[in-house]
Amino acid sequence: MPKLAPWRSALSRALHRNRALVYARYTQLATVQANHRPANRTVVFRGFLADSNTLKFVTDRRSKKVEQIAENPWGELCWYFPKTREQFRISGKLRVVAATEEDSDLLRLREGAWLALSEGARSQFAWSPPGHPKNRSEVVAQESTDLSIPLEAFCLLLLTPQDVDHLELREQPHHRCRYTLQSDDTWQQQTLNP
Amino acid sequence: MPKLAPWRSALSRALHRNRALVYARYTQLATVQANHRPANRTVVFRGFLADSNTLKFVTDRRSKKVEQIAENPWGELCWYFPKTREQFRISGKLRVVAATEEDSDLLRLREGAWLALSEGARSQFAWSPPGHPKNRSEVVAQESTDLSIPLEAFCLLLLTPQDVDHLELREQPHHRCRYTLQSDDTWQQQTLNP
Repeated sequence: MPKLAPWRSALSRALHRNRALVYARYTQLATVQANHRPANRTVVFRGFLADSNTLKFVTDRRSKKVEQIAENPWGELCWYFPKTREQFRISGKLRVVAATEEDSDLLRLREGAWLALSEGARSQFAWSPPGHPKNRSEVVAQESTDLSIPLEAFCLLLLTPQDVDHLELREQPHHRCRYTLQSDDTWQQQTLNP
Repeated sequence: MPKLAPWRSALSRALHRNRALVYARYTQLATVQANHRPANRTVVFRGFLADSNTLKFVTDRRSKKVEQIAENPWGELCWYFPKTREQFRISGKLRVVAATEEDSDLLRLREGAWLALSEGARSQFAWSPPGHPKNRSEVVAQESTDLSIPLEAFCLLLLTPQDVDHLELREQPHHRCRYTLQSDDTWQQQTLNP
């Protein structure tokens, strides 16, 4: 069980101080497409895996990011906190946990993430394939869908950070600190020019 | 002179409706690093180039994104508007306009972008190289620096969109529309599944 990384307290503080803003839990996740161009979208932070520094998100198996991650697992989050005027850039490897997952522990975590969603959020996984041209005759959501067990398209998405850059803009000059995971699983911390 | 793209009115409306939030002009820009991993950071929207669909930002020549763009000019903005609950993903080619620029029109635009900055924002370009380890003995900003002409590190950063994905989350089901620039410089517009 890895120790809590030293950047965790700064991130927890930011989440706490910005808790009045529901969108303080929204962050932008960049990945790389097969054509070597970047992709970038908003994702909702769903907390940390217990006893780890791994961040949880959810996604749809039919979304483009799942393909992108299969080819190139690297991601970078850019997370801006408006109230406290600070930014975390968190980079690391992404892991998609789909219905076909073979690791039973991860499958249980996927089920837990499903149960933690609202009914509205769950029903989105019954919608027509995201990003496809809209066909007006399609049914948007199946009223009769059983939402008590994870729908096939539902995936848990995990990001295990290797590098964290924390920038604070409240004061002049700004304050910037970088945390880097070492090969012995400890974190090196360094103050940088902003 | 290209016509205003059809997504411009939706973006203008979002900027207007979110104008009470200063950070509605902040957006996250993803690029690709030389090691094929994504990078992602917050940038401040500085308006459009006159009579074009090109977005303006500013950056420091010493920042990593300038190196990244020299190797791979593709970028994707992820722009979330909290008040109206909508997201624009804007991808296209980036162009850095540095002090060494040879195009005199672009150099004039760089000077204009400098003059539009506050004194505080200008003085940041006299700070020590961003992202380098902090050396406590270094002077952070030269009090005597002349800020009336652009400092050498100051760059204008231009993004010319080729693809725009607009997602509106206010209603269930969500609404999503994609705009793609065609080879004849017209925009194709398509409604997608959210």
